[in-house]
Amino acid sequence: MNIRDLGIKIGQYPAGQLNKISDVPGITVGHTTIRNSRHNTGVTVILPSADNIYHHKLISSCAVFNGFGKTQGLIQIEELGTLETPIALTNTLNVGLVHSALTSYMISNYSTKDSPILTLNPVVCECNDSRLNDIQDQTVSYKEVNDAISSAKSDFEEGSVGAGTGTVCYGFKGGIGSSSRIIAIDGKKYTIGTLVLSNHGRMPDLMIDGLKIGKYISDIVKYTATEDKGSIIMITATDIPLSSRQLKRIVKRSEVGLVRTGSFIGNGSGDIAIGFSTATQVNEKSTINSFDFISESNIEIIFRAVSETTEESILNSMLYSNSSVGYKSNMFYSLCNFSDIIKEIASVRKADENKLYQKIKDV
Amino acid sequence: MNIRDLGIKIGQYPAGQLNKISDVPGITVGHTTIRNSRHNTGVTVILPSADNIYHHKLISSCAVFNGFGKTQGLIQIEELGTLETPIALTNTLNVGLVHSALTSYMISNYSTKDSPILTLNPVVCECNDSRLNDIQDQTVSYKEVNDAISSAKSDFEEGSVGAGTGTVCYGFKGGIGSSSRIIAIDGKKYTIGTLVLSNHGRMPDLMIDGLKIGKYISDIVKYTATEDKGSIIMITATDIPLSSRQLKRIVKRSEVGLVRTGSFIGNGSGDIAIGFSTATQVNEKSTINSFDFISESNIEIIFRAVSETTEESILNSMLYSNSSVGYKSNMFYSLCNFSDIIKEIASVRKADENKLYQKIKDV
Amino acid sequence: MNIRDLGIKIGQYPAGQLNKISDVPGITVGHTTIRNSRHNTGVTVILPSADNIYHHKLISSCAVFNGFGKTQGLIQIEELGTLETPIALTNTLNVGLVHSALTSYMISNYSTKDSPILTLNPVVCECNDSRLNDIQDQTVSYKEVNDAISSAKSDFEEGSVGAGTGTVCYGFKGGIGSSSRIIAIDGKKYTIGTLVLSNHGRMPDLMIDGLKIGKYISDIVKYTATEDKGSIIMITATDIPLSSRQLKRIVKRSEVGLVRTGSFIGNGSGDIAIGFSTATQVNEKSTINSFDFISESNIEIIFRAVSETTEESILNSMLYSNSSVGYKSNMFYSLCNFSDIIKEIASVRKADENKLYQKIKDV
Amino acid sequence: MNIRDLGIKIGQYPAGQLNKISDVPGITVGHTTIRNSRHNTGVTVILPSADNIYHHKLISSCAVFNGFGKTQGLIQIEELGTLETPIALTNTLNVGLVHSALTSYMISNYSTKDSPILTLNPVVCECNDSRLNDIQDQTVSYKEVNDAISSAKSDFEEGSVGAGTGTVCYGFKGGIGSSSRIIAIDGKKYTIGTLVLSNHGRMPDLMIDGLKIGKYISDIVKYTATEDKGSIIMITATDIPLSSRQLKRIVKRSEVGLVRTGSFIGNGSGDIAIGFSTATQVNEKSTINSFDFISESNIEIIFRAVSETTEESILNSMLYSNSSVGYKSNMFYSLCNFSDIIKEIASVRKADENKLYQKIKDV
Repeated sequence: MNIRDLGIKIGQYPAGQLNKISDVPGITVGHTTIRNSRHNTGVTVILPSADNIYHHKLISSCAVFNGFGKTQGLIQIEELGTLETPIALTNTLNVGLVHSALTSYMISNYSTKDSPILTLNPVVCECNDSRLNDIQDQTVSYKEVNDAISSAKSDFEEGSVGAGTGTVCYGFKGGIGSSSRIIAIDGKKYTIGTLVLSNHGRMPDLMIDGLKIGKYISDIVKYTATEDKGSIIMITATDIPLSSRQLKRIVKRSEVGLVRTGSFIGNGSGDIAIGFSTATQVNEKSTINSFDFISESNIEIIFRAVSETTEESILNSMLYSNSSVGYKSNMFYSLCNFSDIIKEIASVRKADENKLYQKIKDV
Repeated sequence: MNIRDLGIKIGQYPAGQLNKISDVPGITVGHTTIRNSRHNTGVTVILPSADNIYHHKLISSCAVFNGFGKTQGLIQIEELGTLETPIALTNTLNVGLVHSALTSYMISNYSTKDSPILTLNPVVCECNDSRLNDIQDQTVSYKEVNDAISSAKSDFEEGSVGAGTGTVCYGFKGGIGSSSRIIAIDGKKYTIGTLVLSNHGRMPDLMIDGLKIGKYISDIVKYTATEDKGSIIMITATDIPLSSRQLKRIVKRSEVGLVRTGSFIGNGSGDIAIGFSTATQVNEKSTINSFDFISESNIEIIFRAVSETTEESILNSMLYSNSSVGYKSNMFYSLCNFSDIIKEIASVRKADENKLYQKIKDV
Repeated sequence: MNIRDLGIKIGQYPAGQLNKISDVPGITVGHTTIRNSRHNTGVTVILPSADNIYHHKLISSCAVFNGFGKTQGLIQIEELGTLETPIALTNTLNVGLVHSALTSYMISNYSTKDSPILTLNPVVCECNDSRLNDIQDQTVSYKEVNDAISSAKSDFEEGSVGAGTGTVCYGFKGGIGSSSRIIAIDGKKYTIGTLVLSNHGRMPDLMIDGLKIGKYISDIVKYTATEDKGSIIMITATDIPLSSRQLKRIVKRSEVGLVRTGSFIGNGSGDIAIGFSTATQVNEKSTINSFDFISESNIEIIFRAVSETTEESILNSMLYSNSSVGYKSNMFYSLCNFSDIIKEIASVRKADENKLYQKIKDV
Repeated sequence: MNIRDLGIKIGQYPAGQLNKISDVPGITVGHTTIRNSRHNTGVTVILPSADNIYHHKLISSCAVFNGFGKTQGLIQIEELGTLETPIALTNTLNVGLVHSALTSYMISNYSTKDSPILTLNPVVCECNDSRLNDIQDQTVSYKEVNDAISSAKSDFEEGSVGAGTGTVCYGFKGGIGSSSRIIAIDGKKYTIGTLVLSNHGRMPDLMIDGLKIGKYISDIVKYTATEDKGSIIMITATDIPLSSRQLKRIVKRSEVGLVRTGSFIGNGSGDIAIGFSTATQVNEKSTINSFDFISESNIEIIFRAVSETTEESILNSMLYSNSSVGYKSNMFYSLCNFSDIIKEIASVRKADENKLYQKIKDV
């Protein structure tokens, strides 16, 4: 179930065909899920292109809203403005292992005798799934990383899967969520897609399309957490031609979507956004690289689209997840349990808003 | 009129006595307003303490969400973590002049033969009021700066006054708004206060406490602007003892309050936050400075409070402003014109939410 | 007198024809000098192009090594990566006034009825000349700014002139210095030029081409300052096509040149670098902007060239300056007073190095 | 052999007893070296204190001069200003594995049932040793990390050892180098120590105490590399009580020492500095933390000391290293091979400088 099934449409721009990050041509996503009596964790991998990305780097940027996190690879993205590996997501204490596995994968697949991979900047992000996972076991291994890569496809699963298997969002079961938008710039159509790994927020803060539903549900379920622990990772891709400076401005607007779901960017929530454009491959061999970048006067529509894809991705990450019982018998409900309520609220509100509209018209 | 008069309470923490930044002891605010057939502009000054701030610097920090702005003084705040002058606000093309006037004021009042002021870092922020002001005239002079300083008081005016005389917020008349919160940390009470100069946003984006009222009103008034031009300045003060690193984390959460009023941090909107703590005066003469800082484990409540004061300050900046006709006969309505509607919506929503609460309870 | 006159050649790349920043085609520099019994100060202006720069913005970037300074305009350069006004340099307490004057100048000259200047980001840098100037008088006025602009030319004066009239460098008379380099990238020739306003350093630290001459001279002249007060501003221009990200990497290497003259980037020394490229004018009106940027694999030669131009500019700023007696009878010697010594050292060293070369060859 | 053995004293402050980072009380360093026909690599670990650092975090900061590197853990240091693990150094393609091993080590040794380690920010730095190491083998394993930790001691080895086994500095064999300084602030003595992992620079650029010896030797040995590949990691510790803001300012001056050895901070050289203070342990449990920080007016002496320790550490890293033949028969000489030359130059220069001193005196 996703947010549109509840009669709620986030924002103004149309979604792509799958309403996923993979609506951006060339992008695929794979998961490996670990689920047993002590563990709920895994790996999710975003493959930015079908090409050898190490030799055909993509323009990239990032933004750190709250650095209480362990994401790896951002220093070089900041300096060089390029992405040269898939992006992997996993749990906090396995981020090093996945970094190592991604390195091995790249060497095995893309290193040649003439062009060995002697330096590499894997990008690995993490959320802390210790509420549902015995995280100290560091249970992810190389195999899970390779399996996630080899299973990558456009029409990937969302919800409680891969790196999202053990995450918790606004006190509900969180996980992987995705969404996309199609926008037109000067008559030409482009796609913007986001994938989130959601693990942040306190239940009373949850806001759906302006409706502060979280405070009511948290009362009922006797929600007691007082701090926002966890994190959120927000990956945005697009086929719009953009400089790394522009991409930084754009991924900063991920935070707008995040806040619109109710987050206060809590102390313990490592909130990080990464973006890349598939429009241009950087050729390090030629003396001059030619770029066609969108003018700054066209950027605002992209800001809005990223806010929309992020907001919807977060809501989808909860709605695609089933309730989970995990390690130490911690139980986290799916937001779907409350779908009837949300649907009804949405319809009541629509009626109220129509009345409002009439009133205002008469002013 | 302010947002509470409409039956809407932003957030969970209680406001201070005045519900202004000046609830933080020692802080006063002064305005000079220029209003004539061609000009709607002015100066607003925040005096952080009654002491000689140049010799008793306060710990300070800042955050730039969108640097499409001309605020002055942030480089040194970033490096040294201290504030050494009042903070002045004015229009975009007068920021240099006000910087110069603030320098003169500090020399006249605080320079002595033994301790001359040979270097000084005035902090001057700006919004672009050219929709209501013939800004190219650069009409602010030294006199307005000095008058604003000498008129500073705790119970200062809000709305269309001082630097806010010609600003526009979500297509309504914007200006100066303020709000405060009282929080308790380990049993001890502290105050957090914010003052904003609001000049940002498109009308369809306006959201009041989750209600997307802007899109309805913009339809009615035939609002046509497609880009978010302008800026917002958000100044937060507190008597909580904090390091500059902690203050940076805190003022970053101003953006949460901003987004909760509907902003997408548009391309042309220079959005900047500055914070300072009155708890500790930095003594540059002694070898060692002793500081008592709040532990990071207590910081989340402050994040939430700043989001609340910022959100409420922005709403107040509009509600305290009257409709204005300015330069070139541009007309901007006060949001108050729609106060009955907002009040009714708030009450309908409260009823709906009560029904919701019953429903959820029955799940 | 400049450093080459002393038989010392900084670095490996050839200088341009004038060995000034104005070797980059289109750049001119103007000064206004204020020199009387109480004042030694002024204004220096760099005009980046003969075109209307507000409507033909240039790609730009900046780097702050030590933010204990008051330079204005960097926030917007950081966000948008463009320069839209001339760059002005002046004393610390006049930076606001010069900002205002530059605003007026741009309005007077480039604002039209159809295309008014309603927002503007003047870039104004400063050094603290209070050792030779009664700085609290804030003696610079609009006239000096306009005069500096109208007197701009390629073959501008260096040394104790304009904004450099009252500055002090390594305890000697400092001021304006400039230098350029011609480099070839893939057979095509480009120019890199730097202009500095030098006001930093303690005399014992002065190092000329590796020779630590400062400690000897400071002994003789009984130099007593124990702290590095002042600042240095380093402006670099080039006709190489570069992104703002690349320009940031390049101007960061200004610090290399600075350190090679002996600086430790002292506490009180606000050290700031700004760079711009004249290769591309940004057209905000078109949907797409096409850029030809140098590939990163060609950037290292530019790093080295900027280090060279900065190092030589600093040395020239001292050697072009005459000894000055200023306010309160402070006396600062010209480094030229010691030119014979430096020349002799350079020649002794050359002889020693030749001997060394023989020795090493025999190993 | 170290630089003092050659009659060259870097800077003005006295070294500590060992002239190593471990002169700062509590600090120990351990190495594991891997050296065989195909590999020259390893692990070096800095243990910041004998206490459980996870529960007694230290104030910390970092500075990235060139982000073309893969160092892990800086995002959280930047946000929270604390260090909570040992700092590990290794080769570029093993940084993930070492991150994972450091995580396991911390869990094994410091996690308890009551206080499990559910989140952790290991700090792992790297240099690219592929000129002497078949780096694609990713040959470091958990064992090497644990062995390095358990072998840590104050009087640790320098040179071609641990993470420095396969590194190259200015075309000579590089590796681990260290140095310390004792300074007095208001009569109280403090220690500052640095450890570097050197792997940067082109031979012609090498400068020793102002003497540009590199260009001569590179001529002789027919050095041909045209780019600065590699990296340098510079870790600085002190017992001076400092805020994270102050530590950032201090570690930024590592670059001064680096440049004084001849570096231009080349394109491919990921240059990164990290600092921490052992003076205060951060107690996250208490509501208020009390800190005694050195006043900013005393910071300049620390800037100078860090420049000295960094410069001397780099020189020592080369002088303690033996010549190495590695993978693919690449041969890198020890700088010691040229020690007689350097010694003689230093003595000739001393004689020249004495003559100079006489001359200047007679002016």
